[in-house]
This record gives sequence, structure tokens and C-alpha cells, in this order.
Amino acid sequence: MKGDIDMIFEQIRSEGLAHYSYIVGDKNKAAVIDPRRDIEVYLDIASENDLDITHVFETHRNEDYVIGSVELKDAVDAEIYHSKGLDFRYGNPVEEGDRFSVGTLVFEVLETPGHTDESISLILRIPESPQDPYMVFTGDALFAGDVGRTDLYGFKERERLAKNLYESLHDKLLKLEDGTIVCPAHGEGSVCGESINDQPVTTIGYEKRNNPLLDLSLEEFIAVKKDEKIHRPPYFRKMEDYNKNGAPLLGRKNQLDPISCESLKKLTEEEAQVVDIRSPSSFAGGHIPDSINIWRGGLPFFIGWVLDYDDPIILIDDFNLGINEAAKHFTRLGYDNLKGYLAGGFSSWFKEGNDVRTLNIWTVHDLKGRIEDEDLFLLDVRTDKVWQEEAHIPRAKHIYIGDLANNLEDVPTDKHIVIYCDTGFKTNVAASILLKNDYENITALIGGFMAWETLGYPVEE
Amino acid sequence: MKGDIDMIFEQIRSEGLAHYSYIVGDKNKAAVIDPRRDIEVYLDIASENDLDITHVFETHRNEDYVIGSVELKDAVDAEIYHSKGLDFRYGNPVEEGDRFSVGTLVFEVLETPGHTDESISLILRIPESPQDPYMVFTGDALFAGDVGRTDLYGFKERERLAKNLYESLHDKLLKLEDGTIVCPAHGEGSVCGESINDQPVTTIGYEKRNNPLLDLSLEEFIAVKKDEKIHRPPYFRKMEDYNKNGAPLLGRKNQLDPISCESLKKLTEEEAQVVDIRSPSSFAGGHIPDSINIWRGGLPFFIGWVLDYDDPIILIDDFNLGINEAAKHFTRLGYDNLKGYLAGGFSSWFKEGNDVRTLNIWTVHDLKGRIEDEDLFLLDVRTDKVWQEEAHIPRAKHIYIGDLANNLEDVPTDKHIVIYCDTGFKTNVAASILLKNDYENITALIGGFMAWETLGYPVEE
Amino acid sequence: MKGDIDMIFEQIRSEGLAHYSYIVGDKNKAAVIDPRRDIEVYLDIASENDLDITHVFETHRNEDYVIGSVELKDAVDAEIYHSKGLDFRYGNPVEEGDRFSVGTLVFEVLETPGHTDESISLILRIPESPQDPYMVFTGDALFAGDVGRTDLYGFKERERLAKNLYESLHDKLLKLEDGTIVCPAHGEGSVCGESINDQPVTTIGYEKRNNPLLDLSLEEFIAVKKDEKIHRPPYFRKMEDYNKNGAPLLGRKNQLDPISCESLKKLTEEEAQVVDIRSPSSFAGGHIPDSINIWRGGLPFFIGWVLDYDDPIILIDDFNLGINEAAKHFTRLGYDNLKGYLAGGFSSWFKEGNDVRTLNIWTVHDLKGRIEDEDLFLLDVRTDKVWQEEAHIPRAKHIYIGDLANNLEDVPTDKHIVIYCDTGFKTNVAASILLKNDYENITALIGGFMAWETLGYPVEE
Amino acid sequence: MKGDIDMIFEQIRSEGLAHYSYIVGDKNKAAVIDPRRDIEVYLDIASENDLDITHVFETHRNEDYVIGSVELKDAVDAEIYHSKGLDFRYGNPVEEGDRFSVGTLVFEVLETPGHTDESISLILRIPESPQDPYMVFTGDALFAGDVGRTDLYGFKERERLAKNLYESLHDKLLKLEDGTIVCPAHGEGSVCGESINDQPVTTIGYEKRNNPLLDLSLEEFIAVKKDEKIHRPPYFRKMEDYNKNGAPLLGRKNQLDPISCESLKKLTEEEAQVVDIRSPSSFAGGHIPDSINIWRGGLPFFIGWVLDYDDPIILIDDFNLGINEAAKHFTRLGYDNLKGYLAGGFSSWFKEGNDVRTLNIWTVHDLKGRIEDEDLFLLDVRTDKVWQEEAHIPRAKHIYIGDLANNLEDVPTDKHIVIYCDTGFKTNVAASILLKNDYENITALIGGFMAWETLGYPVEE
Repeated sequence: MKGDIDMIFEQIRSEGLAHYSYIVGDKNKAAVIDPRRDIEVYLDIASENDLDITHVFETHRNEDYVIGSVELKDAVDAEIYHSKGLDFRYGNPVEEGDRFSVGTLVFEVLETPGHTDESISLILRIPESPQDPYMVFTGDALFAGDVGRTDLYGFKERERLAKNLYESLHDKLLKLEDGTIVCPAHGEGSVCGESINDQPVTTIGYEKRNNPLLDLSLEEFIAVKKDEKIHRPPYFRKMEDYNKNGAPLLGRKNQLDPISCESLKKLTEEEAQVVDIRSPSSFAGGHIPDSINIWRGGLPFFIGWVLDYDDPIILIDDFNLGINEAAKHFTRLGYDNLKGYLAGGFSSWFKEGNDVRTLNIWTVHDLKGRIEDEDLFLLDVRTDKVWQEEAHIPRAKHIYIGDLANNLEDVPTDKHIVIYCDTGFKTNVAASILLKNDYENITALIGGFMAWETLGYPVEE
Repeated sequence: MKGDIDMIFEQIRSEGLAHYSYIVGDKNKAAVIDPRRDIEVYLDIASENDLDITHVFETHRNEDYVIGSVELKDAVDAEIYHSKGLDFRYGNPVEEGDRFSVGTLVFEVLETPGHTDESISLILRIPESPQDPYMVFTGDALFAGDVGRTDLYGFKERERLAKNLYESLHDKLLKLEDGTIVCPAHGEGSVCGESINDQPVTTIGYEKRNNPLLDLSLEEFIAVKKDEKIHRPPYFRKMEDYNKNGAPLLGRKNQLDPISCESLKKLTEEEAQVVDIRSPSSFAGGHIPDSINIWRGGLPFFIGWVLDYDDPIILIDDFNLGINEAAKHFTRLGYDNLKGYLAGGFSSWFKEGNDVRTLNIWTVHDLKGRIEDEDLFLLDVRTDKVWQEEAHIPRAKHIYIGDLANNLEDVPTDKHIVIYCDTGFKTNVAASILLKNDYENITALIGGFMAWETLGYPVEE
Repeated sequence: MKGDIDMIFEQIRSEGLAHYSYIVGDKNKAAVIDPRRDIEVYLDIASENDLDITHVFETHRNEDYVIGSVELKDAVDAEIYHSKGLDFRYGNPVEEGDRFSVGTLVFEVLETPGHTDESISLILRIPESPQDPYMVFTGDALFAGDVGRTDLYGFKERERLAKNLYESLHDKLLKLEDGTIVCPAHGEGSVCGESINDQPVTTIGYEKRNNPLLDLSLEEFIAVKKDEKIHRPPYFRKMEDYNKNGAPLLGRKNQLDPISCESLKKLTEEEAQVVDIRSPSSFAGGHIPDSINIWRGGLPFFIGWVLDYDDPIILIDDFNLGINEAAKHFTRLGYDNLKGYLAGGFSSWFKEGNDVRTLNIWTVHDLKGRIEDEDLFLLDVRTDKVWQEEAHIPRAKHIYIGDLANNLEDVPTDKHIVIYCDTGFKTNVAASILLKNDYENITALIGGFMAWETLGYPVEE
Repeated sequence: MKGDIDMIFEQIRSEGLAHYSYIVGDKNKAAVIDPRRDIEVYLDIASENDLDITHVFETHRNEDYVIGSVELKDAVDAEIYHSKGLDFRYGNPVEEGDRFSVGTLVFEVLETPGHTDESISLILRIPESPQDPYMVFTGDALFAGDVGRTDLYGFKERERLAKNLYESLHDKLLKLEDGTIVCPAHGEGSVCGESINDQPVTTIGYEKRNNPLLDLSLEEFIAVKKDEKIHRPPYFRKMEDYNKNGAPLLGRKNQLDPISCESLKKLTEEEAQVVDIRSPSSFAGGHIPDSINIWRGGLPFFIGWVLDYDDPIILIDDFNLGINEAAKHFTRLGYDNLKGYLAGGFSSWFKEGNDVRTLNIWTVHDLKGRIEDEDLFLLDVRTDKVWQEEAHIPRAKHIYIGDLANNLEDVPTDKHIVIYCDTGFKTNVAASILLKNDYENITALIGGFMAWETLGYPVEE
């Protein structure tokens, strides 16, 4: 019978990070490209399909998450492959033209520097037509509608990296057939590219016709890339260390502990970091003093800005649903100091009569009515790119949320601070930071700029 | 080899209702006692253990949930058995002494009226010692630490029912060996008994020694039962109808629809019932006008008090986690008019700039400081039993939450209404009712009486 | 925040049938293309991603499985769309150029007749570049490495259909950009194309360069298609009826019953069809008299050749693992007469001392040594295509397994029948048929032609 | 609200071993009694119910499986408690009367030596009636219908242990109230007791009335226990070592590897142990030479008799369903040398033309017809107890399967060996052993003594 062992191809999306990894298998063998650290998903797919994971490919040293190669090797005894262009402390070096067989499939290395010097892509060929590239795993070189960042080595290196990337794109990737399927390392929402389209995969031909950055001349391309402003969270440094030298092994991950109010109080005396993962309006309605509000979906974006890697972290939710899912965001960014969560949820706290803080909120209608208030300090915490390229509410001052803690001198202590962001979620991260720094007169704008614009209220460019 | 097909015994707990049903199997056959309406749990256990469900026993016509007998019969073609003492419109009548074989197990009918006239218990005998009762499924006759309600036929019938129950207990159930395991139909938290202990199962011997109601003389017992005050939610009537005549078949349950803000607005114009299933502090921080706040865990207790069976119901949550689990509470109470939930959660609402309401909250500390306020109307909405038997905050007036809608004349419109309950959850059900009835000056006490008492603030008996 | 509601794209593979269906979603809406009848997979994906399935597209009236459109509409209240070119008894007719919005996505109809007259393809456009086709769902018009069958309307219509298909391919599909991703309705192993490559998806460009059928002139193409020989199982007629007029609703599917030996005997007296789903060597080692051996993986291929739609079907396995998975193959082909499976597995049968039959097996080594035996009748049951295009064992006669029951006159009753196929699995389907027809002297070749060839034994072309 | 954090009580059954462990929780704390080594089940229950596992109790040093205490402590940081009566290399010593609080629950130590010197029981008291024992975890002291083995210290110690056990039972356990629920460490089918009833739990009262061993005088009891014959597999020694000194940590368990035929051949050259987990008739129909047939359900009983702890173990199945479930039996007995399973199943082997062996089988009807054959050697491999207490087939010789390898001199090499057991499964374990030892003329009786008896064939006592 034909067809009983089909080619397996799965894209694994890590929400928030918008990180794409891949498992590709055939004839009881499989390769994983750019695995994440919580590797159960690969083990499960391998197990369901009788696959032995033999190869782990890294397209480059990633900086936005802990790569799971070492973890995966520990579990399945696969070999790790990455570019010879960086002095990795684990795995095997590869170079242009190296080929690896996985079942009847062949992976071929294409060096595509630019995002980083050691970036590679992997061409996948299938036995039916081995001369023709079937797919290409492009890492951070080429995304759907965007290309990789070239700012990570610092200002001085930007031009060199941009040139390298241009050449990797035009001399290598775009030379592949139009019909080649492109499997990038990131999708829409990633911190690795601000204009990535919302498409799971794309093709060389589709990108040639639709990716605005591929139409540019070398000079134009360099100019655009030098001018590009993408935030770089401080946790990147930890990731770079881990991903060069190998991250600590998780093994069987420890259970998250349900923590009593009493223990929570003790831990906070010892500098524990209390993270309230509820929505901004829930936090506004009542929260534990000095807790930081990063809503569940925002964890992969903001824990890397505001948490440290040493003090224990405790999560606060209302009903502790999906708490293990939330915990994965910490694992992926290397926050192994996540200790547990408040047993019974936030109500355990208030049932005991502990101190509860609230946060004032305004709707956009409220703001509209008081926008001329003398003592109002309207703070826009959206990204630099959005601030520069899009409209804002009149009278607003801008400090990106990630820069807020280091720029408190620009936030007056004697005014009524009204904070807004895109829709109201990020606002509370900023509000928490100010509250922790003893600001008292703070209001969060619910609905944010989106609500303001939807109601047709006046804006400034 | 021995032991490859073991006896299967599983207690299935329906949270909130504190309803216990049972599946008992042996040699590829199984019986289910008092199934709930979402029957997948029984089908899954049967399937995992190669069991053919052949018998469904009902201990009585239940009044607090829709029994799943008809649903289960539809799925597995089992026979339904219940007492000949009520004119059921489905199933087969049984009487004292009837025996049913399920594999090598034998179930024997024991008539135990009192909670209702047609209540039966089922003795389970196993082949090793068939003369000795191994277990007894007591329905609502005997619970761990409590016995069944005798008030459901109305005031006049209380004495007769209490006498019947006394005899069922003393002449039948307590005559069984002390070592007989007792499997009741309800656990702690059920509306069918306010003093049920938190034990999954119990024994005849343990109850004889520890159940305070079993020590009473007939006269004392009748006196206690006549004096007993347990609330009776209005939805009981629907359950009684369904459980006598057979509830509508669910078949494959329809998916819950994610509903857009636009559709939600249209539906609310047509009297849709918007139920916010978040915590009380989340609701306080921001909610959709005219929505009713019944926290997730309170659904089985309060939807039967405040929702009707006709107008469409829409759920509001923050992140729509476990929404299908929440929906099961509606299924179990026969609310097949649950239509869907707000797609994207509450933030979809405020991102569009729609009107958002907040609810004022006080901590017990806040209340303490203002308890002498002239215009304060302190409303205790806990159960009648708690109000009568336990302490309360000074100055409080009492209206049970379930009675509030029909007693609004007792709640002044020109005062500042401060509401409290045990811990702060039920308070918001009451607050929603008042808000819907145009009360404007309302405050919810977070932490409730538990927080007040924990801090050692003064109480009145 | 960007990226919180990503485009969802999932390919759902039905094993064996090698049928691909798709769910594509965006902004809380989703479309399903060519759903299968066991629709839980779509409901689950929709539920996990907050999607409301609003559109069901059928690329054509399928003939190899029961389409799940009506079932899905029943569960989620979606609209069904298919070509106006056939008089479907349900759903809505569409034609070239019709467009449908699902969230921000747009599906556009392209008429691509050839496989059937009413075949359509669906172009998917995404908002980033709406002018450019992103994907195309080609149904049975274009596969990876192959194109659709053109033989289903009978011999006379082959030329017309082949011409139509040629034009659909060259004038329509291949006119799309090379970078367009092609999502076909079938993969390798399908009865709808014998040369489909083992690739989950492909692209227009990749097919242009690698699909051998796209290089042909119209005349060559027609010649090839007229000469093509693919088997057509008898169950296709049922599928055509169901898929034109709407299949019976499943609703909540009934549980498979565990059936006792006693019940099995009774059922077989009433013409029940006993299907042994174990491997060929397991069946050889012992089986129930008159049972048909179709190994688990062969169910989608052979139940449609050998089972009828009326008499009850009972499955036999050793340990009843994955029995519900096996049952899905019956559901997908409309065999709603599958009743249950032998409780306790095959050992229940032999533990009771019931009659057990064995089947003689030979290894290829055994056959080699006795291939010159006078009374040997060597029967090759592989497909006509394989028989004609590939080598076979010397002395073999060929009858395709699907044709065996109607050609028993070609199988001598007085010889030793040795049966072989590709690897030994299909052999037992043939052996079961002969056993049921009172042939006594039968041997199954374990390992089949693959083992013979691997050992380098002589073959004939 | 009452009832939101109920007492959690779950019995976890390990199939085959018939080992019962327990997790009991309350108020976010939990204790586990006698955990198994694959601890995911406890972690999952804890996680679902917001429980922090703080206590692990061992009733004694178990000898039939690897206890999971050390593993669990590693995952959740609980404390381990066991008797001070043995010099354990881990955990904390306890003695009569020690009490431990878990939430509101209290566990109290009762020393109940007899099965082993350090055996303890644990009384569970609940806050509603703390004076009254609610449950008692009796380890191997008291089972449903049976009591613990007293033979494990060797012949000389039997009397002393039996006396101790008698006193533990009569002076301690049976002194508890009749209504106390008894939670033993084993159920029906365990090697730790051959007459255990098939009941999940029991009560003191039920045992007093129904357990035949509790009616005996001290002298009778000692006599019975001294005369008791239960087999003692050789792996017990490994377990005793592990359970005294702490077993190796599993951490995240390695994936089972799918192994190719080529690798399998290489591994068997290096003494790999090939275990065919299919049914006896499947093995009879074809198997890999020198593989041992232990059907899936027999793994916990027989791997400990026939496998060593050093050479790699490889599993053979037909379709590799539930292979991870099968692997757990190896983990539980400490066989960490289980390496993988044949990729693609047994058919991978025969597709390549590799050598396939078959095993002759007879039905009981076949045996009946040839029971007088001169050269027949009829071998009964059932347990000593069954052989002595029940009937057998005329002419049979008896060697227990576990003793076979060491008693080959009693099995003639020049006769036709026909093997039987209870139903035909164990027979193949014996047949594999003989085949490996170059016996050639072997027949397995399918259906075994059960089929023989069912057909009413003559037996001898």
C-alpha cells in the first residue's frame, strides 16, 4: 500500500512571540527547525507519527526567545546544526552547500547573513523532484511582507548588515524558483519585524510581487534599514547568552505551586515580583498593591522589559484558568524564577481583608470632556514607530512603555497622568510602573487610541 | 489471568450543583445512577473500559438539575428505571425488592420516600458476598452529615414527608450493615442540603455516629425539618417538568458562537440576557451596561434565580478561557437559550469606544470608616439560614439575593446602598439587579463578611 | 496590540482516503473547504480560536467519501456553497467570479470543470495584497504531481472531460502566479489519483516545472487520460447519491457497543458482516470462521469493495485499541450499519472454546522453493496499473482484489491457491473472500512482492 | 460561597500490578499515598485542583513496583514519610501516633507490621468529626477479602510475621469503627495477594463479615499463612533495593525511539531483548525469531520473570497503538533499558523478506482428538496455587511459567510439547522460552483450560 507513511510538515506557532518553528518528517525520521524551549509539542508530533527526531537546525542565534535545541537533544538524542559563523558552545557547524538526509528528504544549507552574520536558510528538497527546491526555511532573513532586523549589532554595523541582507535576499533567496514555499521564523506581531504580514507561509513569487522591501535598490534598502526603529527589550541580552552557550536544561518542568496569601506576603517582603495577568479593567477594579499588570496576552512582550531573572515571580489571576499556558511564556524567555500563582486567585486576597488598590479609568468620552484640564498630563506609551508614523490624541507626550522606567524624570509628579496606548492593555503596564514609583494621580484610558479614533474624535499627526 | 476486567466505580461530580452521579460497571456492562444531561463523561468512561451502558437508575425526580436519563438512553439504548410512585412519562417503574443484574453485580431497589414520595435507594451487591450490601446509592434520602429536604411539596406536606423520611432512614437505610458504603446524590454546597459534609462518600456506620439528624427522635426530627429554611430557586419548576416528562434531547450540542459587538447590540435590543461571568472586582472595573454579573463559579447557583428560558443569553468574559465549561452549567439547568459569547472578550467592547460602566467598591476598611454615614443603607444578601444563625455587620438589613428582585420596595432609592455577602461574589449579583432597576448609588463590599470578621471588626448576632 | 487574532489555516488529512480538507479563518469567522463527515475536528479548531464557521465550500460532488457539509451546517448554521453546474438538493449555487468575505479574507470562485462538470476552485486573497492570489483550493482538478480522474462519467465522456480539464488547467489555474500556493483535495494514496506526490501542499510554479501531466499537449493529455486505468469501487455510487442529495445526519454519533460472543453468534446468523481489523499474520494465526480480514489501515480502501450497507458490521481486534478511530473510516464512507466490536477482543472467542480457523502463510523463501509445484495457482491481486506497469512473480495470474468476488470462475477450486500483493496486507482481503466462498487450499504470501524483490528473486515483466 | 474547594479523593489504579495509590487533597494542599513512578497522574490532578502536594506517605517498602516518592519529591518538593522501622536512605521516619495536617485533614500513623516489619497504616480524619476515623490506608496489611503476604522474609520468618500481622489486624485495624472506609494498596490481580476481591475500596465492617482470613484464630491464621504459596518474581530484589535506597530519577522521560529493521538486527546481535507484545494467536501467525511473546496485558506480570536490567529491550507490535502505555509497565518495574519499538510494526520485518517464524496452535478440540498421542508432553504452566487447588487436563505435567527457565531438564526434547495455561496468553510466554532454548516441536493450546472446561471435556483433580 502506498501512502501509509506520509511526509509530515507542521508549523508550530508560539503565540505572542509570533515565533514559527517546524517539524518535518518522513519515513520515521524527522528534523526540527528552530525549536522552542517547551519541546513537548515536537515530542508529541514525533510520537504520534512514529518519528525519530534526528536533526535540529538553527537558522541563527535567536535573540527573542530561548531556543530549545539543547533541550530537544537531551530528550531525543538528535544532532544540532547551525552556522560555523558563530562560536556556538554546543552543536555542529555547517556551511553553504552542506546537505542532510532525513528519510528521503534533503535539507541543504544556504548562507544568508544580514540579520546576523551567521544566519542560514535551509532548502528542502523532496525525492519526487530533487533538483527543484520545494521549501525554504528562511529564519529571520525573509518574512511574509518584511525582512529581518539589521540593528542588533549596534548602530555602526547597520550598514554592513543591511548590505549583507540585501545580497542574501537578491543573490540567493530570490534566485530560487517563484514556486518555492517560504517558511519564515516569525509571523505578524513579532518583535523581529514590525511589518510582517499575517500569513502562515508565503512563496518566493508572492514575496517578489508583494514585499515592499524587495523592490528597493541596494542604496534605498540600506537607507530604509538604517532608519528603522524597532524596540529592543533588555531581555535580549540573556537570550543571546543562552542561545550561544546553551540554556539551562528544564527536564521535567517543575509544577507551578499554588501559593497562599501568607506565603505571598512573605515572598513580597523578599522582593518577589507579583504579576497580575488579568485584563486592564479587572486590574482597575481591584488589585494587590505593588503588583504589575501585564495581561495574559502581553506576557511575551513585556515581561522581558520589566522583570528580572532573580527574584521569584508570582502570578495573580481571578480563576487560575490556563495558568500553565501563561507559564510557558516565562519558560520561553528563560524566566525560570517563576515560582507559582496565588491559590484561589485574587479573591483569596480580598476575602482575608488585605489591602486592595484600584486604578481610576476613563473612557475616551471622559477624556474628551476633560482634555483641556490644566493639570492633565496625557501620556502616549505606544511604540516609537507608531508615534512617528500615525496620528495621536492632541496634547499627548510620548514615552514608549519600555523606556518609561528609565525616563521617569519626564513624567511630572504633580499632574494628573492620563495614560493611553493602542487599545488599553499596554496602558496598565505603564500605570503599574508609575504606581510602583509612587505616582498617585493616575488614570488609565480604556479603549485607547482605537476607541478615540473609532468615535471620530480629533487627532494630531 | 485474573483481573483483566475489573469492577469500575466512578463518582462524577458536577461542580457547583455538588451533584454526584455514578457509573458502575463489570464484565462489559454498566449502570449509571442519576446521570447529568451532558453525558459525554459517561460515554467516555464506558468507551475506555469496553462497557455497554445497559441500565440507568434514577433515585427520584430531581428538581435541581435536568436529569440525563433520556439523553443517555438516546446515545446508548439503555433502559431507564425509576420508582413506580410517580407517573413518569418515560422509563420503567420499579418497586421494593426489584433486582437488576449488571455483569456479576446486582442492584436491588429499596423504597426510601421522604424527600419525595417516589424516592428510592439502590443497594449494590457484589458476587464475592452477595448476602451483604456493599454499597447503597441513597439519592437525596441520606447525605454525609445531612438528610434530604422535605419542603418541596409545600408547607402542608412537610410533616408527612419528614415522618416518611424518618422511617426510610431508621427502618431501612440504618438497618444496613455499618460497613455499607453510602453514595449520596449530593455533596457539600448543594441546594439540596445546607449542612452536607465535604466527603465524597460515607458509610452507614460513620453516619450513625456523626450525622446529627440521625440522633433525633421522630418528634424532634419532624420539628427540625418543619423549621428548616432552604431557598428554592424558581427554576426548580422547570426541572420538575423536565424530569417528569423528559427533557428535550441535546444530541450533538450546538457550538457556542463567538458574537461580535454589533450582533450583541442588536441582540440586547431584542431582550437578550447579557451575563458577565468575571469576578466581582473585574466587573467593578468596567462592564457592559445592564449586564448581570454572575461569576463563573456562581452560575449553577444564580442563573436559575435571575435568567429566563426564552430570551437569548450571551456570556461576557475577558479572555474566553473555559467558556465551554461555563456553558455546561446552562445545559445542566436546561437553559438551551444560551447563544454565545462576546468574541474577543470584554475588550472588544471598549476598543470600539462603547459605553462602559463601573461599580464602586469598598474594602471592609472603607466601610468601617463610614459605617455611621447617615445615608448608608447596608444590605446583607446572604441566605436566610446564615442571617438567622450567624452574626452580621451592625446596621445591616437583610434580603436574600434570590428574593431581591421581588422586594425592591424594601430598598430605598434615595440612599447609598452598600451591599455585602459572604466574600463579595454574590454581592455583585445583587448589585447587577439593582443597577438594572435604575438604582444609581451603589457600592459593593469586597471581601464581604469574611474579610470583616477576619479583621476583627464588630458584629451583631 | 497586533497579532492577537491571526489568520488560521489548517489542513486536515483523513488518513487512508488521503483526503485533505481545510479550515481557514480570520477575525472570528471561518470557512471550511470540503469537510469530512466526522466534523469534530473543525468544531474543535473553531472553538479553540474563537471562530464562527460561516461558509462551507464544496469544490465538487465528491465520490470517494461522504462530504460533511450538511452535518457542519447542522452544527454551526453555516451556509454551503457549490457549483450551479449540478442540481444539488441542498446548499447554494455559485459561479465564476462570485466572491465571499470571511473576516478580511476573500474567496473567489473559479470554474474548473474536467474531473466533473461542476468542479470549481477557490482562490483565496488576503487583505495585504488583494490583487494577488495567495492560495488556490483546487479540489480534484490539480494535485501535487497529478491531475484529477476523468473516467467517472464512463467511457464515452472521457475525451470531453479530459479536454475540459486541460482547459481548466492551462487557461485558468496555470495562469495564476507561480507563487500561488496550491491546496488540493487529495494527497498521495488517494483513489482519486494514482501518481499524487507525497507533499502536503504545492505551488503553481512547482507544478509547472515538475508535474509531468502539465507538459503534455492537448492531444497527448487526452490520450493519456483516455488510457488511464484507476479502479472504481462500488461504494462510489452511494457517495454520489449522498453528496448530491445530502447524507443522513449523524448528530451525536452512537457509541460503538462492546458485543459479547453470544450476541456475535446471533448476529452472524442474521447475516452480520464480521470484519477482522488485525494484521494479516494475526489473522493467519487464528480467526473467527467467515470473518473478513481488512487490516486497520486498509479499511478506507476495501470496506467499500466488500461490505454492504444493510447488514450489521462487527469489528474484531485483539485488544480493542483505537477502535473508535477505526470506526471513523466507516462513518466517512457512509457505513452507518457499523454496530460494535467484540468485547474483550478475539481472545473472548477462543477462551470459550469456539471454533478458530487459521490461514496458511508462506514467506517468499517458502514460495521460491516450491514455485514449480504442479498444483500451485499463484494469484497476484495488485491493481491493474501495477500489474501492467511493473514486474511480477513468474507464473502469477492477475485478478485485482476488487474484481475477485465477481471472477471466481477464474480461480480453480482444485489447486493450491497462493495469493500475493504488494506487501501481504491486501492478500488477506483476497484470502478472506476465497475462504468465504469455500476455497480450502489457500496460502497467503507474507511480505508479498516487496519481500520477493528485496531478496532479488527472479521476476517477469 | 461554600463548596468551591472540595475535598479531593482519587484512587489511581495501575493496571496489571493492581496497585492502588491515592491522592487526597483539601484547601490547596495534598498528600499522595504510595505513588507510582510515572507521576504525571498526580501532577495533573494537583494542577487541575490547585493543589500543592506537600506530603508523600509510604505504607511500607514495596517490592512489586518502583515507588515514585523520590520522583514526586523532585517534581513538587514534598516531604516523604515512612516508618522508622527500616533504614531508608531517603525521607523522614515516623512512628505510631504521629499526625500530619494537610489542609484541614489529619493523617495519623498506625504501626501495622506483618507484611513487612516497617508496615504502617494511615488513618484519615476530617474536620467534621475528627474523633472518628473516616478512612484508613492499610497498605499491604489488609485488602478486600485478603491480607498481606508474610513470606517475603523467607521461610523462617513466616511465623513471626504472620503473628505480627494477626495482631496488627485484630488489635489495631479491626478496632476501628465498622464504618471506616478501607483503602488498600492492591486490588484483584496483584502478585501481593492471590485472593483479593474485585472491589475498589471496602470497609472495616464489610471485611469483618466477609474476609475469610479474619475469622481465624491466631493458630489457624499462622497455619494458613505458613502454608501459603505465592510466586515471587526475581525482579522483586531490584525493587527492594530501589525502594530502600531510592530509585534513579526519571525526570522528563526519554521518548521511545522508533527503530528500523536494520538497527533491530544490529541490536539483537548485541543481546537485545525483543519483546513481542501482541496476542498469542498473532505471535503464532508470524513473529521475529527469538523474540519473547508477552502480550500487552501480561507485561507487568512477566517482564520481571524473563527480562534482565542491562540489555536493551525492543518492543514489537503490529500497528504500534498505545505503545507509550505499554512502556509504562517497564518504567514501573524499573526497566529503564527499554529502548524503543520496531518502526512500522511487525510488517516492516516481513516486507523486507526477513525470516519469519510461526508457532503451531491447537484448539481444545484438536487436543481432545490427540490427547492419547504417544509422543505428547502436555505442559501446564499455571500457578502452583491453581495447579494444587483446581482441576487440570488429564496427562498434564506442571511447571509454573516463572520456574520454566530453571527447570528445562524436566521438559523432554524428544516429545511434542503442548503447552496450556488458563486461557492461552501465558502459554506463549512459556512457548517463547522453549523456542529460545531450541525446542522445536511445540504447540500452544489456544483458549487454555477455560475453553477445555467450557466445552465440558474431562478433567483431573
